[in-house]
Amino acid sequence: MIRVGVVGGTGYTGVELLRLLLRHPGVTVSLITSRGEAGRRLDDLFPSLLGACDLTFTDPAEADYSACDLVFFATPHNVAMREVPALIEQGVRVVDLSADFRLRDVELWEHWYGETHAAPELCAEAVYGLPEVNRNAIRGAQLVACPGCYPTAVQLGFLPLLEAGVIDTSGLIASCGSGVSGAGRQAKLGSLLTEAGESLAAYGVAGHRHLPEMEQGLASMTAEAIQLTFVPHLVPMSRGIHATLFAKLTSSDVDLQSLFETRFTAEPAVVVLPQGSHPATRSVRGANTCQLSVAQPQGRDTVVVMSAIDNLVKGAAGQAVQAMNLMLDQPETTGLEGIALAP
Amino acid sequence: MIRVGVVGGTGYTGVELLRLLLRHPGVTVSLITSRGEAGRRLDDLFPSLLGACDLTFTDPAEADYSACDLVFFATPHNVAMREVPALIEQGVRVVDLSADFRLRDVELWEHWYGETHAAPELCAEAVYGLPEVNRNAIRGAQLVACPGCYPTAVQLGFLPLLEAGVIDTSGLIASCGSGVSGAGRQAKLGSLLTEAGESLAAYGVAGHRHLPEMEQGLASMTAEAIQLTFVPHLVPMSRGIHATLFAKLTSSDVDLQSLFETRFTAEPAVVVLPQGSHPATRSVRGANTCQLSVAQPQGRDTVVVMSAIDNLVKGAAGQAVQAMNLMLDQPETTGLEGIALAP
Amino acid sequence: MIRVGVVGGTGYTGVELLRLLLRHPGVTVSLITSRGEAGRRLDDLFPSLLGACDLTFTDPAEADYSACDLVFFATPHNVAMREVPALIEQGVRVVDLSADFRLRDVELWEHWYGETHAAPELCAEAVYGLPEVNRNAIRGAQLVACPGCYPTAVQLGFLPLLEAGVIDTSGLIASCGSGVSGAGRQAKLGSLLTEAGESLAAYGVAGHRHLPEMEQGLASMTAEAIQLTFVPHLVPMSRGIHATLFAKLTSSDVDLQSLFETRFTAEPAVVVLPQGSHPATRSVRGANTCQLSVAQPQGRDTVVVMSAIDNLVKGAAGQAVQAMNLMLDQPETTGLEGIALAP
Amino acid sequence: MIRVGVVGGTGYTGVELLRLLLRHPGVTVSLITSRGEAGRRLDDLFPSLLGACDLTFTDPAEADYSACDLVFFATPHNVAMREVPALIEQGVRVVDLSADFRLRDVELWEHWYGETHAAPELCAEAVYGLPEVNRNAIRGAQLVACPGCYPTAVQLGFLPLLEAGVIDTSGLIASCGSGVSGAGRQAKLGSLLTEAGESLAAYGVAGHRHLPEMEQGLASMTAEAIQLTFVPHLVPMSRGIHATLFAKLTSSDVDLQSLFETRFTAEPAVVVLPQGSHPATRSVRGANTCQLSVAQPQGRDTVVVMSAIDNLVKGAAGQAVQAMNLMLDQPETTGLEGIALAP
Repeated sequence: MIRVGVVGGTGYTGVELLRLLLRHPGVTVSLITSRGEAGRRLDDLFPSLLGACDLTFTDPAEADYSACDLVFFATPHNVAMREVPALIEQGVRVVDLSADFRLRDVELWEHWYGETHAAPELCAEAVYGLPEVNRNAIRGAQLVACPGCYPTAVQLGFLPLLEAGVIDTSGLIASCGSGVSGAGRQAKLGSLLTEAGESLAAYGVAGHRHLPEMEQGLASMTAEAIQLTFVPHLVPMSRGIHATLFAKLTSSDVDLQSLFETRFTAEPAVVVLPQGSHPATRSVRGANTCQLSVAQPQGRDTVVVMSAIDNLVKGAAGQAVQAMNLMLDQPETTGLEGIALAP
Repeated sequence: MIRVGVVGGTGYTGVELLRLLLRHPGVTVSLITSRGEAGRRLDDLFPSLLGACDLTFTDPAEADYSACDLVFFATPHNVAMREVPALIEQGVRVVDLSADFRLRDVELWEHWYGETHAAPELCAEAVYGLPEVNRNAIRGAQLVACPGCYPTAVQLGFLPLLEAGVIDTSGLIASCGSGVSGAGRQAKLGSLLTEAGESLAAYGVAGHRHLPEMEQGLASMTAEAIQLTFVPHLVPMSRGIHATLFAKLTSSDVDLQSLFETRFTAEPAVVVLPQGSHPATRSVRGANTCQLSVAQPQGRDTVVVMSAIDNLVKGAAGQAVQAMNLMLDQPETTGLEGIALAP
Repeated sequence: MIRVGVVGGTGYTGVELLRLLLRHPGVTVSLITSRGEAGRRLDDLFPSLLGACDLTFTDPAEADYSACDLVFFATPHNVAMREVPALIEQGVRVVDLSADFRLRDVELWEHWYGETHAAPELCAEAVYGLPEVNRNAIRGAQLVACPGCYPTAVQLGFLPLLEAGVIDTSGLIASCGSGVSGAGRQAKLGSLLTEAGESLAAYGVAGHRHLPEMEQGLASMTAEAIQLTFVPHLVPMSRGIHATLFAKLTSSDVDLQSLFETRFTAEPAVVVLPQGSHPATRSVRGANTCQLSVAQPQGRDTVVVMSAIDNLVKGAAGQAVQAMNLMLDQPETTGLEGIALAP
Repeated sequence: MIRVGVVGGTGYTGVELLRLLLRHPGVTVSLITSRGEAGRRLDDLFPSLLGACDLTFTDPAEADYSACDLVFFATPHNVAMREVPALIEQGVRVVDLSADFRLRDVELWEHWYGETHAAPELCAEAVYGLPEVNRNAIRGAQLVACPGCYPTAVQLGFLPLLEAGVIDTSGLIASCGSGVSGAGRQAKLGSLLTEAGESLAAYGVAGHRHLPEMEQGLASMTAEAIQLTFVPHLVPMSRGIHATLFAKLTSSDVDLQSLFETRFTAEPAVVVLPQGSHPATRSVRGANTCQLSVAQPQGRDTVVVMSAIDNLVKGAAGQAVQAMNLMLDQPETTGLEGIALAP
């Protein structure tokens, strides 16, 4: 039985990670730490876990990670970069769900996050945890940086088009919507039901921290320079990311449907929908799945890709477990077979 | 491997039942029938099942149930009573999720459903499928009538009080709320997001078909006569039943918390919350769990019980699988270990 | 033109009050104060007011209320009781939307609010602002204490029954649901869309501050002693209160429908629905209306009343304007004619 | 007092139109017709109108429109084109909220609506009712075709950019979201709370009937050829349209903020937000307002415009009343001063 630890775990990615790990047949959660909640039962904080475990939060200062085969960081950014180096040194493998190691370019990270990176030497070494692109590197990684939720939906959607070289990479557009859980389990005015409910609005149009992550990832799929306009929207629902992607086709005779189906045929976490279908976040709620479809409206030269994930699963905790399975030679989908909860 | 069939399965209890059965390690779904959808792929109707199965609906007229160990009816009322007798005769065991066999009193059934019962002889024979009350009878049953969603929440909440004989049974009150999936997967005006969303309203105050079922069940827990006032409300959410129960205490020195904890200590599908906590439907979404709490506001003589379930799981499909496990000597919780999806 | 001031006004009752006052033909809002937002434009805080006014928040320390005919307090409890006495002394009339002057019994107030009342002498003098009960007293009042949202819905529902003396007053039950705006415009974890959305739960069962207010109001309608069990629920919607009330009938030949219709026939803010109808909060959203219906399920001796209001309108800001109209000899419904926004 | 009639009025645009007209100080609704609901009280169909009117639906066959100064059609497409010619002949002026007269090109209409147009001669004569573009023509019009909801949001957003000639008109993109009321008051599976709630999905990507309307309108603002990619999304809310528009700038030194503010400075129904703000549908719910903002992310050459309206008000009924006011020499905003309902 593999022994894993969870650092943080008091937020929505944390409780989702525990939902998956506590039912993973090959794993035991042996440690969960939180400074603020030390000593508190996990199921007191999250009543959805009542009856499912007896875990209690440990103070990080008293935590002994050496008995763990792998440790997840489900913390806000700025925590993992301080604590991961010591774990790596101990030989503990790490899956970081935060943003600390997602950008290889340390300066770019420091520009977008407005602070000095505490472990710059690990940025280049960390493997970006998108299995559909980096499966083999993840297998051997000591440190995996899990992709953000928007970047997962956007990169999977552009992937076949960029690899095939059939779009103009200088004018990519991603118009995306996220459920409110993307803003975290924090008491923010803008996340109140009374504010976010019954409303649709864009946010962060001037610049969102997922933009450089997306441009880095998209650039790795092509030799061309990437320029992406990214507009996120807050959608009145708890879970889900939907990305609508636009690009100009540079080739007129590409069979888009077949391109997508072929690219993802062997991918366990990606489903390409039949032509004319539209993915919906409700169809992937709770599941480690990205549903994709591709269209060419009016037969004109703009291609439209639609991509739907659960931001907490394929966009966070599920993807982290997928990475863990690869790292620890488990079947890639173990613990991730849960079917989406609909309605 | 146990082979099961599903009759109906085009509604919300159907897709929920399939979500559970397709991941049940001891079961194969060998047959699913629908008159209206015959020939259509199941995952075309329910995109949440994409990648999870290759089933196609069979026309009931062409269905051969003889290869099934057990058949579920996930149909509207009025179907099972016509088709079940033939199956029983063939020796196939049946779990009926509809209302056809819930009332032992055929006249009462005919009064509330406004039609003649097609299989009155089976009404007395059918076992009412509430494991917390009828576990042993379910084990040996040929035909199980799964309780309705409201009746499950209400009966589990009153159960310890009635068994202990500490309340006045002549003035029971159940004020309940249901998510919109309780109204089924049918195009009804009142179930539109624009009608049911951002609103709270009672319905069916003059009389709801779950009332006689509740009174029958409650009466089985006590020698006293039962009189229940039941008011259901439509709540702007997809899933969940919450029941708030009121009764006059006839005894002044009963330790309510301990009464509840003791009664349900061995029940795998019931969790009694610590004193002062309130169950929420969000904490049981997708899980086969009933969360309960009990209170005595201001120390007065009215006891208040709160009961929360997922109407599609413990209130329907999960309870049906729990019954199946009992009938087929599987561990009672197999296939039902899934943790609630929160948020 | 009547000149009014608003103290507070940064919460939901505040913005709702401004929505009404800014379109009231007989009123000018001449002053709005807030310590935290002094100097900020009102429409910067509330973009829904863009184009509707040019007001800016004034620091309360610099506010001159003497030019106001009437001042509203739209503050949390504990503010008005400190500031109102000085205004009363200046001869300014006050409508307080907070809880500070709702209870006539100062000790009871201090018990439930856990602090010493700063203006106990005003508690007996303040008029409880429920026009359906206290219309004439409101007309002449110097200080009106606006009823809470739950108490408005509950008192209007029980009113005809208590006045007619046809129910047992010792076992009243109110099972109520509120939209999340009832919890205020504050960044609380429990009010997040991710927590309150897609869920139903009771809260405050052990004791809610609206209970003594209700019991005081109900007691004023009858000579009998009142005992009320009150269970509030949080409902996944922004606005609305729905109260479902239960009581034992002590008289068997009362025409309930006629009793209700007669009692409210002249009331501009109350609509009694036809027999068999159920009020819905969606039908009163944004309107200063209470919709009521009454039923006697199964012809048994328990009467059920359903009562729906918009918690921010008839439950707060609209009721305050209704009181203001009465106090200032305006037609009672001026500025309150807006029709509910449905869907 | 102006006398108006309403044909249809059983849908959401109908009830919204009545909400506005019943409070319009210069108007009397003298007639409302419906084949299906003839003889039924309007407030029985729409309980939100209880207490606000005594109207009863008239059978269209028995309706006498000659006493009306103006008649609104709030019908599905395909009705007005059959009935309007007779009214025009009688000299009655008409505001059609349906799609029948929105396209000047009859062939294009017949292509997208799949049937023969019943009044092709009126298509060229009808005035497209977008006051921000056609104010004077609306004043003198006999027949006004009210714009669709998406077209209103999209055209207002692109308007300053096209008039100023600063964008590449061949690659316009509109990624839009609509509340479920956009699908009408019809019992459709996809509009159920259980289907549309807690989900985000695109629809009609292959082609939506609002596309040709938008392209016609946008073309009227520029001499260049227009090519628009339009992707609508269904958003889990009742009301609201949000449009996010993308275009390539062809000029590098245009002050976008100033361009927008100048263009709309005199427009009563358009508010340009301060730079860096994002419009939200919640800020215009119930109001006849379009809130706009413009941005140029990362200073690159893609301009992003955000546009928010209430689909039932500025996107339908409010815009219709605005047209009526213009046609009948009323102040343009009479009856439309209502402030948005937030939260």
